[in-house]
Amino acid sequence: MDRPDLTDAISRLRRASPLIHNITNYVVMNTTANALLAIGASPAMVHAEEEVAEFVPLAGALVVNIGTLSPSWLSAMDRAAGAAAEAGVPWVLDPVAVGATPYRTAAAVSLSRRRPAVIRGNASEILALAGDPEAVPKGPDSTSDSSAAREAARRLARDLETVVAVTGEVDYVTDGARMVAIANGHRLLTRVTGMGCTATALVGAFLGAGLSAYEAATAGLAALGVAAEAAALRASGPGSFQVALMDALHGLDDEALARRARLS
Amino acid sequence: MDRPDLTDAISRLRRASPLIHNITNYVVMNTTANALLAIGASPAMVHAEEEVAEFVPLAGALVVNIGTLSPSWLSAMDRAAGAAAEAGVPWVLDPVAVGATPYRTAAAVSLSRRRPAVIRGNASEILALAGDPEAVPKGPDSTSDSSAAREAARRLARDLETVVAVTGEVDYVTDGARMVAIANGHRLLTRVTGMGCTATALVGAFLGAGLSAYEAATAGLAALGVAAEAAALRASGPGSFQVALMDALHGLDDEALARRARLS
Amino acid sequence: MDRPDLTDAISRLRRASPLIHNITNYVVMNTTANALLAIGASPAMVHAEEEVAEFVPLAGALVVNIGTLSPSWLSAMDRAAGAAAEAGVPWVLDPVAVGATPYRTAAAVSLSRRRPAVIRGNASEILALAGDPEAVPKGPDSTSDSSAAREAARRLARDLETVVAVTGEVDYVTDGARMVAIANGHRLLTRVTGMGCTATALVGAFLGAGLSAYEAATAGLAALGVAAEAAALRASGPGSFQVALMDALHGLDDEALARRARLS
Repeated sequence: MDRPDLTDAISRLRRASPLIHNITNYVVMNTTANALLAIGASPAMVHAEEEVAEFVPLAGALVVNIGTLSPSWLSAMDRAAGAAAEAGVPWVLDPVAVGATPYRTAAAVSLSRRRPAVIRGNASEILALAGDPEAVPKGPDSTSDSSAAREAARRLARDLETVVAVTGEVDYVTDGARMVAIANGHRLLTRVTGMGCTATALVGAFLGAGLSAYEAATAGLAALGVAAEAAALRASGPGSFQVALMDALHGLDDEALARRARLS
Repeated sequence: MDRPDLTDAISRLRRASPLIHNITNYVVMNTTANALLAIGASPAMVHAEEEVAEFVPLAGALVVNIGTLSPSWLSAMDRAAGAAAEAGVPWVLDPVAVGATPYRTAAAVSLSRRRPAVIRGNASEILALAGDPEAVPKGPDSTSDSSAAREAARRLARDLETVVAVTGEVDYVTDGARMVAIANGHRLLTRVTGMGCTATALVGAFLGAGLSAYEAATAGLAALGVAAEAAALRASGPGSFQVALMDALHGLDDEALARRARLS
Repeated sequence: MDRPDLTDAISRLRRASPLIHNITNYVVMNTTANALLAIGASPAMVHAEEEVAEFVPLAGALVVNIGTLSPSWLSAMDRAAGAAAEAGVPWVLDPVAVGATPYRTAAAVSLSRRRPAVIRGNASEILALAGDPEAVPKGPDSTSDSSAAREAARRLARDLETVVAVTGEVDYVTDGARMVAIANGHRLLTRVTGMGCTATALVGAFLGAGLSAYEAATAGLAALGVAAEAAALRASGPGSFQVALMDALHGLDDEALARRARLS
């Protein structure tokens, strides 16, 4: 059975209210912090090399996102990954726009080998991270369909002994052996910046609540997809969609997730 | 009489439209700039060591917030505090998550001794800054009730000859002798990131309009609390609450503040 | 005829969906990315010196905005401008708050000489960049009327062989010879942070879609102004205005732009 049990995922998260340590990009810091608060977690954005190693052990999970990369941030990510391993704090990697430049690719590949519990990317990113020659990066937006990256994701998960999540019109989560598809979401998700980063942050929230990597990745993507569908009903464009999405994440409960998540 | 007179606080602010210089964290730059514009001030976010000292004297007040700290930002904060003292520009300190790491604590303690007009924090932060052993930091969110930090706030205000504001379900403002409680606000404030930072920025706006530190701290917290109550009436979650809050800050006037602020 | 033909500007942009490389300020990264997505472009925020030169050639246009300046960002901007010249990628410069400090002025003047296709600023900024002694900077907000900067804009455009756009109650676009006025917009644009930066980003989007500099500058400002008018009808303050503005940019089409843009 490849479909993880998410019966009490939301209520476990709300009870735990885990502190989620984010080293993420400037573009989405505000919006992913708000998504984490809306779903019931407690976000902190801390990036200084001087303090990340001491902050990581306070957290339930760590989110590392290379969107707006620079050398000092990369050092901090590296240090945080080490502290996470030492303290047993699970972490999730978002290799934003990997493949676009050699600098970015080297950073993403190096971090992916530091034992993240989950890697979340779009099809182009997962193909690039898996070294697929068909990967055609175009900034943070994908040029490929998520199904095209399914096998690359499975291989990557096996090679790195991690869980890989590919997001797109349909999302896929795999631990190398099992694979689950999540057919939720809405096309307005592609017209608001940082929705992939938000998916990654939500995966971090469920990791912090104590779910396994495979469960947490599925729960994070399903929660975002289900909330997006509810938000789209109240939206007249990407602006009102983003507002309604935060309301919908806040209003989500176990029952709604179970009823509306389309896993297969 | 510990209740400051806020009769014309809003109209004074709108008439002055003070330039507020912010050295603040990445997470809230956009939202605190918008809150400052909504209430009637003119925000600038300037952090380079190369220019802060020349920018501070142009401003009516300075806001220093250590949320996403790093060495070059800390140097800029230090330099800006010096320039503020020299130019007679009042400033407000937000010691975000002080107590969470030694680096952060050292930074906050050092800045708190540079004569800020106001220090604004949640209960955990004020307890940590006052050196209270009961302070239990959990990232930027407080683990203590604001009333638990009242005496620490009073002592800190006396020791540092400043005004200290503790925010929480009830807010407290003290100059070491006087103390006023502000019983406004809404629980959705805890589900949107940076609302404490927004409180601090609003205090900066009133400082920039020429109010005394004690008045400005009270006015900033009361304005946010009253606006939050109005916003909650139109909100169906944290997303729509944040939008309505900006509208409410913009719509606030002297009469509404006087009628709705619950000071005691 | 100074009025450029914008008949199919929006549909060209949507068909091209150009990747827009932004090196911009922390305050607006999220909101300008969202504006670019709403209008139909694909934004990327990339600032590391280590990768900007390799990223620029992937993009349809580059946006350089000095809002929150620091030395490493300035180096990256410089490097990106060089890469843009080499790769034939048009770029737009936003000299935020030029004139406020010597550091900022030197940076803006230096970048303005690197052959941007368009420079977009408010009246104070254009006056300061043109070396006008009447420029009175007040942070990022203008202290002068846009018409006061019309002649400075024309002179600057001629001297630098570029297109200069001055925004304000009425916007002006000039290539040194031609000049067009755009009488769209709404006063709430001045109560939301980063609306000037959004104008600049939209100019970048139209540059990336292959419009000439003069057309792109006019289209970007007209699109924002027309969308702002639509948004204001649904807004009850700056918060709801900003949300409605994103919806309106997303809903804009050739027909609406042609009918509502007031060019002369």
